[in-house]
Amino acid sequence: MVDHVHFERELTLLKSDVSKMLFLVSESLNDAIESLETMNETLARKVLESDDMIDELNREIEEKAYQIIARYNPILKQLRYIITILKFSNDLERIGDLSCNIAEKCLFLSEEKIKFEMLKELKDMFGSTLKVVQDAFKAFVEEDVDLAFRLWKFDDVIDEMEKKIRRIVVERIREGNISAELALVYILIARDLERVGDHANNLCEEVIYIETGKNMKEFLRGVESGSEGADS
Amino acid sequence: MVDHVHFERELTLLKSDVSKMLFLVSESLNDAIESLETMNETLARKVLESDDMIDELNREIEEKAYQIIARYNPILKQLRYIITILKFSNDLERIGDLSCNIAEKCLFLSEEKIKFEMLKELKDMFGSTLKVVQDAFKAFVEEDVDLAFRLWKFDDVIDEMEKKIRRIVVERIREGNISAELALVYILIARDLERVGDHANNLCEEVIYIETGKNMKEFLRGVESGSEGADS
Repeated sequence: MVDHVHFERELTLLKSDVSKMLFLVSESLNDAIESLETMNETLARKVLESDDMIDELNREIEEKAYQIIARYNPILKQLRYIITILKFSNDLERIGDLSCNIAEKCLFLSEEKIKFEMLKELKDMFGSTLKVVQDAFKAFVEEDVDLAFRLWKFDDVIDEMEKKIRRIVVERIREGNISAELALVYILIARDLERVGDHANNLCEEVIYIETGKNMKEFLRGVESGSEGADS
Repeated sequence: MVDHVHFERELTLLKSDVSKMLFLVSESLNDAIESLETMNETLARKVLESDDMIDELNREIEEKAYQIIARYNPILKQLRYIITILKFSNDLERIGDLSCNIAEKCLFLSEEKIKFEMLKELKDMFGSTLKVVQDAFKAFVEEDVDLAFRLWKFDDVIDEMEKKIRRIVVERIREGNISAELALVYILIARDLERVGDHANNLCEEVIYIETGKNMKEFLRGVESGSEGADS
């Protein structure tokens, strides 16, 4: 039923749009953290402005996906694949929103005339979440279930990082050793980064679903019984 | 191309599944807040357990939607409609996750042997977000663009509620008038409720898109020029 050559070409174009989006979103996340570290308000505003472009790209990807489905009437498996690309794109768009949240903290602190001090633990968390987002996309493009599963398991580490930051902040509030505004900013940024990790985790589950046709519960049963991801 | 009678019937069934999901999610959000107010750990655990059911229902809705698309090859407009139902379902599923976050705060405080005290502002915010979620679904079922647009505008009010709670908490930390753990819990719950509001906001944008074929930017231009939502 599907004209395979044209269909595949359109899918490739769609994936290249998602790559472009990933590039913009990674840059946005990078800039957001840098704006905080250097208290660069201009950079923070750039992050906020670039979000419109990311939203627009997300809408375009959605529109193209609809047209592909309507034109080629894909079978169930192909349909799942296309809709998963849409979910990817949506997850990336949300990560873009979270970058804006982070950039807004730079503007908030600047308004309150408070200098941001980078916490080592926050810096680590930032590096880890950015890497997970980039690797999740790699797993998607290279159809690499093992990588997706390794990343999926790594989400616990990111959750643990957030908890650690919370403990540090709670301790410092108790000691009266931190301004209330900075405490708020640390907690909210760690929260935002944890959510970035969640979206990356969605991406991993989606890769596993596309490649194996199994949701995580089914996939994990396969891992336990030794029929999936033996090298993980 | 589409067998209209069967197609419409399947869509109605799909929407009834989303109604069921809305019911479960509203209950979950209600229970989560109640578990905190009354420090009822059993209720908090019930919220966490019921989340599996919500996730499962979301997967079922997704699967049914795929089958409808694959079977009926709907035209572009119908396709958008079905995918918007999927997004609804996903947004509801995320609201369920946020209820779990809130219920976990009950378990956290209980472990730390700290009693939760309800803030009036938090109680108000809870009432508003729950109502917005329920009304967004009403707008969807009744295809009510005006209601969707009124709710969409209300999101600013919810954002303002979160900011107010942050200001109160920052003030209390400064005065040494709150335990660090409770400060953390207030900030994180207000954050979670604000995100519930965001998801409800997505629902409103989706209703407007389905009914008018316009994204928010286009729709707002129409409102300014007087061709849309004159009574809003």
